[in-house]
Amino acid sequence: MTVSREVELQGHIIDSGMMQTCFGVIMDMGGSFEVEEFDIGRHEDERSYAKLLVSADDEEQLQSIVHELHQNGANPADPNDAHLEPAPADQVVPKGFYSTTNHPTEIRYDGEWIDVEDIEMDCAVVVEDGENPYAYTKVLNAVEEGDLIVTGEAGIRVSPPERPRGSEGAFGFMQGGVSSERPSETTIANIAEAIEETKSEGGKVLAVCGPALIHSGAREDLARLVREGYIDMISAGNGFAVHDIERDLYGTSLGMDTESLDHPRKGHKHHIYTISEVIREGGIEEAVESGTIESGVMYECVDNDRPFVLAGSIRDDGPLPDTITDAVEAQDAIREQAHEADMVLMLSTMLHSVAVGNCLPSTTRVVCVDINPATVTQLLDRGSAQAVGMVTDIGTFVPLLAEEVLDEE
Amino acid sequence: MTVSREVELQGHIIDSGMMQTCFGVIMDMGGSFEVEEFDIGRHEDERSYAKLLVSADDEEQLQSIVHELHQNGANPADPNDAHLEPAPADQVVPKGFYSTTNHPTEIRYDGEWIDVEDIEMDCAVVVEDGENPYAYTKVLNAVEEGDLIVTGEAGIRVSPPERPRGSEGAFGFMQGGVSSERPSETTIANIAEAIEETKSEGGKVLAVCGPALIHSGAREDLARLVREGYIDMISAGNGFAVHDIERDLYGTSLGMDTESLDHPRKGHKHHIYTISEVIREGGIEEAVESGTIESGVMYECVDNDRPFVLAGSIRDDGPLPDTITDAVEAQDAIREQAHEADMVLMLSTMLHSVAVGNCLPSTTRVVCVDINPATVTQLLDRGSAQAVGMVTDIGTFVPLLAEEVLDEE
Amino acid sequence: MTVSREVELQGHIIDSGMMQTCFGVIMDMGGSFEVEEFDIGRHEDERSYAKLLVSADDEEQLQSIVHELHQNGANPADPNDAHLEPAPADQVVPKGFYSTTNHPTEIRYDGEWIDVEDIEMDCAVVVEDGENPYAYTKVLNAVEEGDLIVTGEAGIRVSPPERPRGSEGAFGFMQGGVSSERPSETTIANIAEAIEETKSEGGKVLAVCGPALIHSGAREDLARLVREGYIDMISAGNGFAVHDIERDLYGTSLGMDTESLDHPRKGHKHHIYTISEVIREGGIEEAVESGTIESGVMYECVDNDRPFVLAGSIRDDGPLPDTITDAVEAQDAIREQAHEADMVLMLSTMLHSVAVGNCLPSTTRVVCVDINPATVTQLLDRGSAQAVGMVTDIGTFVPLLAEEVLDEE
Amino acid sequence: MTVSREVELQGHIIDSGMMQTCFGVIMDMGGSFEVEEFDIGRHEDERSYAKLLVSADDEEQLQSIVHELHQNGANPADPNDAHLEPAPADQVVPKGFYSTTNHPTEIRYDGEWIDVEDIEMDCAVVVEDGENPYAYTKVLNAVEEGDLIVTGEAGIRVSPPERPRGSEGAFGFMQGGVSSERPSETTIANIAEAIEETKSEGGKVLAVCGPALIHSGAREDLARLVREGYIDMISAGNGFAVHDIERDLYGTSLGMDTESLDHPRKGHKHHIYTISEVIREGGIEEAVESGTIESGVMYECVDNDRPFVLAGSIRDDGPLPDTITDAVEAQDAIREQAHEADMVLMLSTMLHSVAVGNCLPSTTRVVCVDINPATVTQLLDRGSAQAVGMVTDIGTFVPLLAEEVLDEE
Repeated sequence: MTVSREVELQGHIIDSGMMQTCFGVIMDMGGSFEVEEFDIGRHEDERSYAKLLVSADDEEQLQSIVHELHQNGANPADPNDAHLEPAPADQVVPKGFYSTTNHPTEIRYDGEWIDVEDIEMDCAVVVEDGENPYAYTKVLNAVEEGDLIVTGEAGIRVSPPERPRGSEGAFGFMQGGVSSERPSETTIANIAEAIEETKSEGGKVLAVCGPALIHSGAREDLARLVREGYIDMISAGNGFAVHDIERDLYGTSLGMDTESLDHPRKGHKHHIYTISEVIREGGIEEAVESGTIESGVMYECVDNDRPFVLAGSIRDDGPLPDTITDAVEAQDAIREQAHEADMVLMLSTMLHSVAVGNCLPSTTRVVCVDINPATVTQLLDRGSAQAVGMVTDIGTFVPLLAEEVLDEE
Repeated sequence: MTVSREVELQGHIIDSGMMQTCFGVIMDMGGSFEVEEFDIGRHEDERSYAKLLVSADDEEQLQSIVHELHQNGANPADPNDAHLEPAPADQVVPKGFYSTTNHPTEIRYDGEWIDVEDIEMDCAVVVEDGENPYAYTKVLNAVEEGDLIVTGEAGIRVSPPERPRGSEGAFGFMQGGVSSERPSETTIANIAEAIEETKSEGGKVLAVCGPALIHSGAREDLARLVREGYIDMISAGNGFAVHDIERDLYGTSLGMDTESLDHPRKGHKHHIYTISEVIREGGIEEAVESGTIESGVMYECVDNDRPFVLAGSIRDDGPLPDTITDAVEAQDAIREQAHEADMVLMLSTMLHSVAVGNCLPSTTRVVCVDINPATVTQLLDRGSAQAVGMVTDIGTFVPLLAEEVLDEE
Repeated sequence: MTVSREVELQGHIIDSGMMQTCFGVIMDMGGSFEVEEFDIGRHEDERSYAKLLVSADDEEQLQSIVHELHQNGANPADPNDAHLEPAPADQVVPKGFYSTTNHPTEIRYDGEWIDVEDIEMDCAVVVEDGENPYAYTKVLNAVEEGDLIVTGEAGIRVSPPERPRGSEGAFGFMQGGVSSERPSETTIANIAEAIEETKSEGGKVLAVCGPALIHSGAREDLARLVREGYIDMISAGNGFAVHDIERDLYGTSLGMDTESLDHPRKGHKHHIYTISEVIREGGIEEAVESGTIESGVMYECVDNDRPFVLAGSIRDDGPLPDTITDAVEAQDAIREQAHEADMVLMLSTMLHSVAVGNCLPSTTRVVCVDINPATVTQLLDRGSAQAVGMVTDIGTFVPLLAEEVLDEE
Repeated sequence: MTVSREVELQGHIIDSGMMQTCFGVIMDMGGSFEVEEFDIGRHEDERSYAKLLVSADDEEQLQSIVHELHQNGANPADPNDAHLEPAPADQVVPKGFYSTTNHPTEIRYDGEWIDVEDIEMDCAVVVEDGENPYAYTKVLNAVEEGDLIVTGEAGIRVSPPERPRGSEGAFGFMQGGVSSERPSETTIANIAEAIEETKSEGGKVLAVCGPALIHSGAREDLARLVREGYIDMISAGNGFAVHDIERDLYGTSLGMDTESLDHPRKGHKHHIYTISEVIREGGIEEAVESGTIESGVMYECVDNDRPFVLAGSIRDDGPLPDTITDAVEAQDAIREQAHEADMVLMLSTMLHSVAVGNCLPSTTRVVCVDINPATVTQLLDRGSAQAVGMVTDIGTFVPLLAEEVLDEE
């Protein structure tokens, strides 16, 4: 027995790769298809339309295929309303719940398409009904008994971002992702331009920072970018803040004087002493206010009201009183920052970049910089459509970026 | 003005590198020295002794040098008792507190040298006085008001492990650390022998496991090692457990069938569905008992009473009810396992390996396996004296290790 | 002024990505297009056809675009004969000569399409006219004065390989290229199957071997695969052969006993002594025949008449008398092997793999194995359509591969 | 039976690690020792002296140990003259010939110690007797019948460089080798200082250049350093020169415009066209003189009489007429440059850096820069005592270095 369903694709379905992907999905998963309608955009700025009849051996296989097509932007041709079921208990979703992508998504409710707010990957979609029904995402651990949750595949429309065309702005510059074979200075100039564009549009820039920023000597330039307002928010871990403050208190980072390179051995204990001092003061803000901390990235955040999130991890020393030690609470704080960000700079940290990336819709601009190509690749693979990667040394990148951004003022 | 202090070195101070290191420390840090006594071991199994007069320009510099010499096993020639001060508040240590190394350490109390228990890096040393005084380490966040804490440098003796000599057992095989230029099968055979040696001495083996173990197809062989009692404890994260259970529930890992490699696209949602199923059951143990989970590493842990710690992180989905989301609580659980372990296998995880490594004394045997040489190097640099590193594919390593271990029964 | 040209695409132009690529090329390069005809294959096994009118601002830009479309399989709609010009001198090609891709290529000569033989990248196409005209590739340094060389873009048809469909054989298993997130044992089993399939079809397997094969302990298993006929030819460098023979003469590789791991220091000079011994004998074959060399990969090559090419490089010690020190001569020898190969195993060598890869058409099956993901990615990017990459430890890969291949006999 | 021999160590044998290494060598290789005399330098600037009696089970083992001690600077206490034997044929050395280290070496001839000139690794030592006897190294393939070649271990003295003390000059800054955890800008400033120091001492700087220099946009700054005389010689491959010239002829590097990043696809054929143009001209110098090449690194070399060596490899396209295709000839050209260099910058090339490094004595200053930490580690391991490594992006390194060097003029 063969079962079939019609799906539709529209938009720049050829040059976005959507049509290729969908054909591939069907064949990979053992199904077959017939192109029932195909209306190709005659010019590069016209949209195309295709209707496919997808067939499979049984209903389960068909559902798997249609689910996967969904994720890639093909939608059922004869939409019904999304199916809703109440959550049976806190943190427990109904079986067969719909797990989100990070692409813009709508659901059909009462015959109307409504946007799913705060879209991010691997969430449930919750619908608040009533006069002005609306839909939004919830991570599993936030689900409450009775939440109306979308299940199944019907009545859901996903829109993977299309390939930028024509005047693509600053973010058009590195299509095709990562490469260590690009000219570094030109790429940095383009990233600087994208930051300026974001700021001039009134957008917010979030920097996700790893401790290598401090060891590699990029601290002062990063602090300037915070002070001058090119970075609006910081997402980091306990270690980043400790290294930054150690530099202020002792002039070292992990015990090395980052200016003279002198006495590489001296001061290993500075790290733990720094933590102890901040605990004694009660926190970073208190230590800035008391005059104990007088410079650096954290100092500029406090001094200029740039919000920061320090998320804890099991490798932390201390931690500082400001560090959120509970992973779920920390994710909530990260999520809030991520949703406010219009552009995200991921700077030399895998753990924190993945955590932030998990909360981003595919439409947020992302720049990922690391000296390890595997880190950059892995971050880009997770999925922003507007992500660019650069394999470089953070210790030369930040100074050159600061020069570009601040000199053009 | 010049200030001086005498320090002593004893043991195999030449071939352990201790003497070279100490000479280097003094010169790097701007001091000078005179060798006042030197009694070299005439044979390779005789111990040597040296007394150095270390000089510096001022007391602060001298203290820095002596502190650093300390960390490397040189001790003041005229020991006084360690200086103790009460902690002024919870989590607040007295200024100038002594921050530990991971080497065996004694303090001088009331004229007697007593061991510091549960030694690990970057801790305070707390002394309980009374009839039977004893000393032990506390991490900063565990310090309580009134704890008597060692400060300064006096009355502390550190013993970095010496180079193994003569019959070095299985762990002699890879002195000189990591290399990707060693024969893989022979190295694996040596690691297998070290595991057997540890077990035959009644020791406990802790495996620190990253999710790549599951993707790479090593799950079944790792599960066998747990079942057969060669691995006594598991330390991992939420992701490892989810991937392991996903394989049981859906036959996939991150959506790919790990046996047939079929349908690489199907089943991306299996990951989040797995979490949802375990939450529904109430936890891993409950899901094993109800028959929902029937195989795998976590299954064998539950079925054979092998304790596991799942430490949360900000990149987790879910998480599972078993995952300890608070970083400080998770560190405590990790610390307990680490102190019980006689041998630690660090398998394809940076984050969890660092967290476990932070809690280990330098005398614990450590094997670190990763396909990224930077990960192996970084882990070994942190400091076990008995650590060996291997740069290899975890997906071929575990099967070959299991073959070696289980075939020799 | 706008200039235009018609180009045609045919085949599985959507799911092969050809159409997407061509749309992207035109837009990236500042041109525009109109789809004049589009006939989509209704089923997954029907071919499609598209005719595009490509426009650009001037003739130069149009030519650039059409050139690039060409490389990706789009051909001028109104083919003329290819334009031929004689080479003005040895090694000198006419201006505007056509530089080849590695895809199957035809040229139009006297109104007929004829295949270009021995296709490989970055060559000139030479046409021998006469009664039975034929076309073939020549690298620049082989061009002779008077050779008739194809210039311009007209009369050339390139066919990039299509995505495999349906029964894809053993090589379907790893579409999507490299990943370190695949199950290792299953992937190795698939590679074994592909070797067996190649052999059972009467094909030849070429192994490109780096010295890490020997250090990592894979020598004996590789030698078995040569002896048993699963590897027909070896392409390597001087270092590989020296290490292999050192193991035979001294039991060491770079001075380390690869079985006992004993005495890692002893025998550094074995490397240079090995070279000296082989020079004394006059060459590898002579040293095998005299009984000096009694085992190993080179021994099996000589003993079983498997041809080998040892290509010299500037980092060689010695070199051995068998090593071809001239790069151009060595390339010619590599080219001959490459053209005979039906499947190529690239094992832990960047330099030799690139050299061999440069001579392969995109239709040859390639497996690339290295522990460095960057090496695997770079090799696959160069372009075989049937290439699969595996990031693993060569020292565990070869033994497991040999087990798979030889146990299934 | 036990056999013994006395060896002596002198110099800063403790803090250079020599004594530790020698103790380790003896124990690793199964021997034993007695310290017969030990006279320690009392101050940090006094030299020490030790005489060891080394024992082993048999003569062969003893010789192996003494050989290895030799390589590390311990010399027989009762020196005889070196043993000399004539080479039996061209390229054939006597059995048991002495294979060199890269450390300063003397041989005892007729009761006198004479320096071995042009020391480099893995060579034979040839002695010209006569009135003014002298000794020098020859690589195996340069040995001629009748050359008097040193065999055995007697009469040879090796001096591994000692750890720098006190005022160490610019090259003291990065003892301890590579690290990606150093501040990048400060490290670059130190390298700039070392270049200036070398130049002010009348020394010569050799830059070993990989093609990534061009792709990454560092070409113009490198060309300035050549023009301004901070780089005296270039050692590179065919690819480097082609990419450099392509940028001049077509404004692209591997087809990408390195300034605008525009049209990443356009111009893949520029690479092969560039080669063709230079061949047409007859070579790089001719193409500069005819005005075809007007800028870039190769241009500045020709224009400013900075000698360059382009060594061929099997992955070359073309090659250019200037490329030395024979590996042995190329090595000779590299050797000549290497012996003239006082400082070597190894910039993003493994193959050429190893080739140059093979010809360097351990006393030459080496800076090795690469974005891949494995490359840096491997190059430093091969052995210059004055080598420093930096893991960074060559595309940001060269501009920042040029700024440092040229701004301080």
